[in-house]
Amino acid sequence: MKKKDTAPQENVVTTKPFPNSKKIYVQGKIHPQVNVAMREIFLSETVDSFTGKRTPNQPVIVYDTSGPYTDPSKKIDVHNGIDRICEQWILDRNDVEELDNFTSKYCNERLNDESLDHLRFNHIRKPKRAKKGKNVSQMYYAKQGIITPEMEYVAIRENQKIQEAKRLSKQHPGQDFGANIPDVITPEFVRDEIARGRAVIPSNINHPESEPMILGRNFLVKINANIGNSATTSSIEEEVEKAVWACRWGADNIMDLSTGKNIHETREWIIRNSPVPVGTVPIYQALEKVNGKAEDLTWEIFKDTLIEQAEQGVDYFTIHAGVRLAYVPMTAKRITGIVSRGGSIMAKWCLAHHKESFLYTHFEEICEIMKAYDVAFSLGDGLRPGCIADANDEAQFAELETLGELTKIAWKHDVQTFIEGPGHVPMHMIKANMDKQLEACGEAPFYTLGPLTTDIAPGYDHITSGIGAAMIGWYGTAMLCYVTPKEHLGLPNKEDVRTGVITYKLAAHAADLAKGHPGAQHRDDALSKARFEFRWEDQFNLSLDPELAREYHDETLPAEGAKIAHFCSMCGPKFCSMKISQEVRDYAAKKEIDDQKALEEGMQEKAQEFKEKGSEVYL
Amino acid sequence: MKKKDTAPQENVVTTKPFPNSKKIYVQGKIHPQVNVAMREIFLSETVDSFTGKRTPNQPVIVYDTSGPYTDPSKKIDVHNGIDRICEQWILDRNDVEELDNFTSKYCNERLNDESLDHLRFNHIRKPKRAKKGKNVSQMYYAKQGIITPEMEYVAIRENQKIQEAKRLSKQHPGQDFGANIPDVITPEFVRDEIARGRAVIPSNINHPESEPMILGRNFLVKINANIGNSATTSSIEEEVEKAVWACRWGADNIMDLSTGKNIHETREWIIRNSPVPVGTVPIYQALEKVNGKAEDLTWEIFKDTLIEQAEQGVDYFTIHAGVRLAYVPMTAKRITGIVSRGGSIMAKWCLAHHKESFLYTHFEEICEIMKAYDVAFSLGDGLRPGCIADANDEAQFAELETLGELTKIAWKHDVQTFIEGPGHVPMHMIKANMDKQLEACGEAPFYTLGPLTTDIAPGYDHITSGIGAAMIGWYGTAMLCYVTPKEHLGLPNKEDVRTGVITYKLAAHAADLAKGHPGAQHRDDALSKARFEFRWEDQFNLSLDPELAREYHDETLPAEGAKIAHFCSMCGPKFCSMKISQEVRDYAAKKEIDDQKALEEGMQEKAQEFKEKGSEVYL
Repeated sequence: MKKKDTAPQENVVTTKPFPNSKKIYVQGKIHPQVNVAMREIFLSETVDSFTGKRTPNQPVIVYDTSGPYTDPSKKIDVHNGIDRICEQWILDRNDVEELDNFTSKYCNERLNDESLDHLRFNHIRKPKRAKKGKNVSQMYYAKQGIITPEMEYVAIRENQKIQEAKRLSKQHPGQDFGANIPDVITPEFVRDEIARGRAVIPSNINHPESEPMILGRNFLVKINANIGNSATTSSIEEEVEKAVWACRWGADNIMDLSTGKNIHETREWIIRNSPVPVGTVPIYQALEKVNGKAEDLTWEIFKDTLIEQAEQGVDYFTIHAGVRLAYVPMTAKRITGIVSRGGSIMAKWCLAHHKESFLYTHFEEICEIMKAYDVAFSLGDGLRPGCIADANDEAQFAELETLGELTKIAWKHDVQTFIEGPGHVPMHMIKANMDKQLEACGEAPFYTLGPLTTDIAPGYDHITSGIGAAMIGWYGTAMLCYVTPKEHLGLPNKEDVRTGVITYKLAAHAADLAKGHPGAQHRDDALSKARFEFRWEDQFNLSLDPELAREYHDETLPAEGAKIAHFCSMCGPKFCSMKISQEVRDYAAKKEIDDQKALEEGMQEKAQEFKEKGSEVYL
Repeated sequence: MKKKDTAPQENVVTTKPFPNSKKIYVQGKIHPQVNVAMREIFLSETVDSFTGKRTPNQPVIVYDTSGPYTDPSKKIDVHNGIDRICEQWILDRNDVEELDNFTSKYCNERLNDESLDHLRFNHIRKPKRAKKGKNVSQMYYAKQGIITPEMEYVAIRENQKIQEAKRLSKQHPGQDFGANIPDVITPEFVRDEIARGRAVIPSNINHPESEPMILGRNFLVKINANIGNSATTSSIEEEVEKAVWACRWGADNIMDLSTGKNIHETREWIIRNSPVPVGTVPIYQALEKVNGKAEDLTWEIFKDTLIEQAEQGVDYFTIHAGVRLAYVPMTAKRITGIVSRGGSIMAKWCLAHHKESFLYTHFEEICEIMKAYDVAFSLGDGLRPGCIADANDEAQFAELETLGELTKIAWKHDVQTFIEGPGHVPMHMIKANMDKQLEACGEAPFYTLGPLTTDIAPGYDHITSGIGAAMIGWYGTAMLCYVTPKEHLGLPNKEDVRTGVITYKLAAHAADLAKGHPGAQHRDDALSKARFEFRWEDQFNLSLDPELAREYHDETLPAEGAKIAHFCSMCGPKFCSMKISQEVRDYAAKKEIDDQKALEEGMQEKAQEFKEKGSEVYL
């Protein structure tokens, strides 16, 4: 099954723009070199079915994670990688130096291995690192009161120009469970949230291709898509396209979880072509280096791996430093034991050596590495529950307490930090996870996998988990790690990635609506207005997956004429409630009196009549 | 596109049993003639990876909606219809009479129309009706203190023999928001809940093929699948197979929403072959009879339609009697107006005649018809919101108050009643729907469509709505009306029906888990144990959709050997956390000491060591 690895073909990635959409760039005010990409969706006119009057509909601007791939003016060549939009900002701060050589021993071995030349990324750049004594993390700058271009970028991005939009309804006030979401996200608010530890911009100085993106409870809920090969399947080419593809459909982050061949080289290709932050679980590669024997892992091998990956540009590391020796026995009676790969590796190491995990004992040294590149911690939940029965147990919450302790140490070093969460949790036990995380981890952003709300639907776990994800996003989780239909069954292919991303995008959006994120409802309103007015093309174009929406519509009514038809195949022309609703409105208009007034008069007249008759139900 | 209608072929329906499953029948104690169908799933042995010891796993019994179609001992012929399991119970009560002719004028016209002979169901039976002065509703019997066979049937069915199962974990206590779910469902509890109006067994005396099923907040959450043709698509044959197919995957009820040709004949085929209750929206057919002109509808035409359908065996009618004239203007400022087809038809009628709806003014007459056949009310939410912006508005809640008022009238007539709910509602506004419904409608069962938690994902509305459905199910909704991926875009095909049903089945199950329904967790536990032990076949067989789970697994690891492999294509052999977890357990076993004890000792030793060193993080 496994193809022999080669460099990807130039045209392997999807670059088609979205229908009726234009990429726009919004310039920064504090930092005029900042140009924030967004997508503007153009809509057709509303035609009044009674008077024939045509009214234009304002374009809708949406958050855009797709990077340069959907901008026809950009030349895409995966062999060169994409534009390095943050590079000059990083250099301008004058805190980094370019190294002559890579620091990691392993990295140098791979670079010198000629047998890998045929699959290597062509333009490997020299790594950057903080100058001696410097800290280059966004948290460090934030605490110094500095608003970086990255911070202004995310502020503009979060607002989506909603202040300039003509709103179609009064948005419902949300229920935000004590979050603090302002009407307008200012660069200063961003800075303050990062300084406070409540938000993170994953932004390794060696990944300047990444368009800044913020994670935090007071910002839009983000999603992560896992990609990466395994020992049994996939190629570099497929993984690069999966990365671009995931961003196309809405992934705010990707994690490269490769555990197969050529992990180092695969990652270089992915990072150079990724417009979103890239996370990894370094212990996977470290384990590969010791041929899969967990007990042979050492701090030195792990450290070299961290540096190797930091100098390639990984934006955040999942580190399972909370899996302490004492917690391992707590999992023995579980139905599914330890289900985190990283967690189980570390548990095995701890038991084999009968020692505290080196991730825990070397935590401050890890912080020193992280801050030299601005790699963020994603503190891994190695003891998360793997089934409903194991949810919210002693092991899980013991680890969470430790993650809270480690968060404080990371913050002491100004290392940006977020916290991973479960897993499999029944609906009524989800909120406790959020509440405990907020308390234990000082409001550091929470990043959860699902949670899956039942175990009985393999093949549909994007849905079992999408339910939990939407709920925990509402409760305050900053980022939702997607689950694809292949979860528990196999490695996702491209279509699974798309399904997983869209499912999580809609869950995140449902959470934004419930939290009352300013402007979240605008796209819903615009789409619903298009739906009511039978502007089918606009309905497709405003949706998260315009291609699929169109495809489904056309399955039963493929004719072009049906795109302007005032009905669809569900009900046919006579039974369309939307059509009848419009007729109800037209009916009033026809009588040449104001629609609303006519109806109200009718109501009053009728109400009077009923009152006179003693409000009896039957006449 | 539309095929010419004919009678379905004999072998058109899917009859394959589920893998490794056997249909079992549990006999009643009060009524020995009751035999409740369930499905028993057989599991393979657990093989201890260290000792090689083999331990059998008890079969798991699951709720089964698939009817005789999955019982190889039953001969299936759609031209005859399925067994009439309730017929004798109905006759035994001696309250019904068989009529010589159908009462409905329209029905007789159709029967006498020779041009329909080629597509007519072959064995149309004479209709039954309550004897003069008799009421044959389950609610009537319940109030008399009578435990009917139908009541005992559902009691046995709800318990799923869970009391006899060897439980694999201590189930999490649920959060049931004031419901009253007993550990064991007794026939007397069922009777009491029905008498109280808190539960409904839809069971038209003319649909004795239906296996009794109960709707209520204190029972398992049920799901409904909508099928039916439209003017632009589908045939009788397709609709009959869709009905059987929907039941196969887990539909507890189906609604025939046909609005196309030959509605009467299509319905006969569906009911005669449906093992689950069938609901309709009679106004659809009534509208067809007046050529789609809402203003031409009359009480007489509607009444004839009710009787026509009641004598065919429709188990519940959606009746939009809450759409009052005075409420129509409240929808004028909505983004999507009135989206219920029935609601918009009635609104149009009310405005055209400037009169209160005939459904409302003739409500007691409708009750008289319902109780003569035990047709249940599904009081329609004609003013439900069709988009996020319109959620929980004045029109919606005004109608709900009226539905509460009508519920009390229906109960006065001992007519079983449940209440329909929204629609499109953001997550944080869902619970208010449940709370208001419980209060306004005296705890009559709630039956909601989704709700959809965002408008922006057409093509994925089974998921946007599955989120809301799981949540409102948890809050207390008795039945969830499915939404398929084609919602808003087209008529669902067979695969869409399957996807919709499984999505709603998992949402309903997630709700059962969260409510703490006794026994709900057993299947999750069994599946998770199988997963942990790499019993792939058992994992597939225990899942809601065994075929799809297997198909997804095989996509990347098709070899039969992979079904017993201790890894999958996601992680490959070295990175499998479940494998490592098992190794952690084995590791302790190898030392010839008790696994748990070893670990605990290790923990204590380590804990002691840490305490002595002052609980410092770093050694």
